[in-house]
Amino acid sequence: MAPDAAPERERRARIALTRVLEPGDQACGRWLRESGPAEVLRRLTESEPDGETEERPPGIGAKRWAGLRARAERAEPERDLQAAARVGARFVCPGDQEWPGQLDDLGDTRPVGLWVRGRPSLRIWALRSVAVVGARACTEYGAHMAAALGSGLAERGWVVVSGGAYGVDGAAHRGALGAGGATVAVLACGVDQSYPRGHTELLDRIAEQGLVIGELPPGDHPTPSRFILRNRVIAALTRGTVVVEAAYRSGALVTARAAQRLGRFTMGVPGPVTSGLSAGVHELLRGEGVLVTDAEEVAELVGDMGELAPERRGPVVPRDLLTPGAARVLAALPGRGTASVPDIARDAGTAPDDAVSRLYELRSLGFVERHGDGWQLTRQTMVPVAPPSCD
Amino acid sequence: MAPDAAPERERRARIALTRVLEPGDQACGRWLRESGPAEVLRRLTESEPDGETEERPPGIGAKRWAGLRARAERAEPERDLQAAARVGARFVCPGDQEWPGQLDDLGDTRPVGLWVRGRPSLRIWALRSVAVVGARACTEYGAHMAAALGSGLAERGWVVVSGGAYGVDGAAHRGALGAGGATVAVLACGVDQSYPRGHTELLDRIAEQGLVIGELPPGDHPTPSRFILRNRVIAALTRGTVVVEAAYRSGALVTARAAQRLGRFTMGVPGPVTSGLSAGVHELLRGEGVLVTDAEEVAELVGDMGELAPERRGPVVPRDLLTPGAARVLAALPGRGTASVPDIARDAGTAPDDAVSRLYELRSLGFVERHGDGWQLTRQTMVPVAPPSCD
Repeated sequence: MAPDAAPERERRARIALTRVLEPGDQACGRWLRESGPAEVLRRLTESEPDGETEERPPGIGAKRWAGLRARAERAEPERDLQAAARVGARFVCPGDQEWPGQLDDLGDTRPVGLWVRGRPSLRIWALRSVAVVGARACTEYGAHMAAALGSGLAERGWVVVSGGAYGVDGAAHRGALGAGGATVAVLACGVDQSYPRGHTELLDRIAEQGLVIGELPPGDHPTPSRFILRNRVIAALTRGTVVVEAAYRSGALVTARAAQRLGRFTMGVPGPVTSGLSAGVHELLRGEGVLVTDAEEVAELVGDMGELAPERRGPVVPRDLLTPGAARVLAALPGRGTASVPDIARDAGTAPDDAVSRLYELRSLGFVERHGDGWQLTRQTMVPVAPPSCD
Repeated sequence: MAPDAAPERERRARIALTRVLEPGDQACGRWLRESGPAEVLRRLTESEPDGETEERPPGIGAKRWAGLRARAERAEPERDLQAAARVGARFVCPGDQEWPGQLDDLGDTRPVGLWVRGRPSLRIWALRSVAVVGARACTEYGAHMAAALGSGLAERGWVVVSGGAYGVDGAAHRGALGAGGATVAVLACGVDQSYPRGHTELLDRIAEQGLVIGELPPGDHPTPSRFILRNRVIAALTRGTVVVEAAYRSGALVTARAAQRLGRFTMGVPGPVTSGLSAGVHELLRGEGVLVTDAEEVAELVGDMGELAPERRGPVVPRDLLTPGAARVLAALPGRGTASVPDIARDAGTAPDDAVSRLYELRSLGFVERHGDGWQLTRQTMVPVAPPSCD
């Protein structure tokens, strides 16, 4: 049966399937692509009289089939939506306006959908994002570099994506937040969960000022394989991945290699050869990875992407397609020179956090630029000065 | 007039010219290439009646011409040869058996000749050599890495070339010496000079166990431009250059860029981004430089040079072309398994330092290999075991 064309039915089926399918399951991903979510859910929930099982999709064994059916039986999409709503999260899936199209590069391992906690548009923020990842048990040096990259990228108008973990991830998120910047945490558990526990406040702050996202439904916990598979989402979402300290066989290298396979930029911050926590980074840099020493070098590399780089060719969407909130913030910017976030928020009649979120959206779309702590219109957006009269 | 064909006359002229021409002087180098050393010396020393000056070679102005002539007037090749002999040094120039042909890659900046202090054959040692260079005012980390590379390369049978300076250079030389290995110091002054003063003993030890070489005649002192131009010799002599700690605009980077232009391998040891002494290395690694973290990675890279790598195809010269000294050392190696330097020296009837010098020559020529502290015949050199009888 062909997939139902009604988007709402598909969305509901995808919500249910985030509780049924494990992230990155290639066989199920293929089945989903070929049959569509509504049909997949139907097959998994229809009654199967003993001995009359329909043929299973290719690559899915009897035991796995039984497990999927058992989970599908227990799925309660309405309850998951309610649990998500309680922490301010929504569900975003392929076909939705907010779906980041670059995740489609993952092919059959594309997430079924993403649970998204926070105000900004995931799709628009992800357009100008860079991943900064690395060791949990990092050194002072690693933490320093991650924080410096986080703040330096934020100051240049880039969205900093990481995994919310201790060590490098946390330092990168905090660096971006500390610079009044934009950051996205991609979790390996439900977005209503605080993992690691010690990052409860950090994750709440990211959700307030940025986005906390993940494939897993509310209440779900991380597992080792979920951590590994979460990394492909970080890699695919961003224009490039910077690794700051990683031992051999570190999860951060998984992200970097995924980024490489996906044609994203792969970068590494070197360290002393005598530090085991730099060994993985050096291995990366001996291959395809590019050595970077500061945010400017990162921005220079990932900013040079032709088609995706709106600063090269002005806004990527017409002004009248902006959401009313974004349009109000854009209107609050002066015709020339920079303005501060509090001033912009006041003039747009909104809260500073909301203004920041809109400003990064407008940045991704090529309307505005960040310079230090000020924001201004891009050259292409500025109101042209009337030419001198000829007579 | 065509250059005189008599090699001895050419050698004498080149000896005189090392006191007249500044290292790396391109205009004079071109003149030397076109006219030959005997003719260049003749022109510089012939009497020029007032107002009857012959046309000067292209690119050499009147003032420079007068300076060259004044220096040629004072040149005393016999005295220089005697001064060199007093520190056990000889003169090696193009056309000599011992001249390292790879220096010809320098074109018109090729040295006029080299003063060579020490026992081993410069040509043969240089066949399997790597440069390890870097900051004078290096950190503990830089000194540690230079020493580790020096000893690690020596243990793998590589000749370690450096500039004899404080810091990284000295650590690299000491690392090689400490591993009972081969090392060459390329000076920016006469090989009878001890520069820097604090390295007097180190340079003596290098001359004893390896080679101290340079373009400048006995008694000459270094100048800033001589330091810079000395670096092209280090780059051209070796198969590759490793930079260990270098600030921006460091002399070690000059060596690295020269190596690059000459088609040699250029490598760098990364360090903390927060260290200014690694900034130059990182700049190199963001370009064509290859990141290396230990001697094995260096050896792997420079060893992979096809035609030049004798270990891939056995000895590069027939056994009966070896010098008697080298042949005796080769004969002292066991048919199978390794032997120590003292045992080899005893069996060859020579001193351990001489045995080491010969062993590195034999290594360059593909006859022997070093494994830790032992030496053995290469697979191609081993006496074949008689095949089992058929009847």
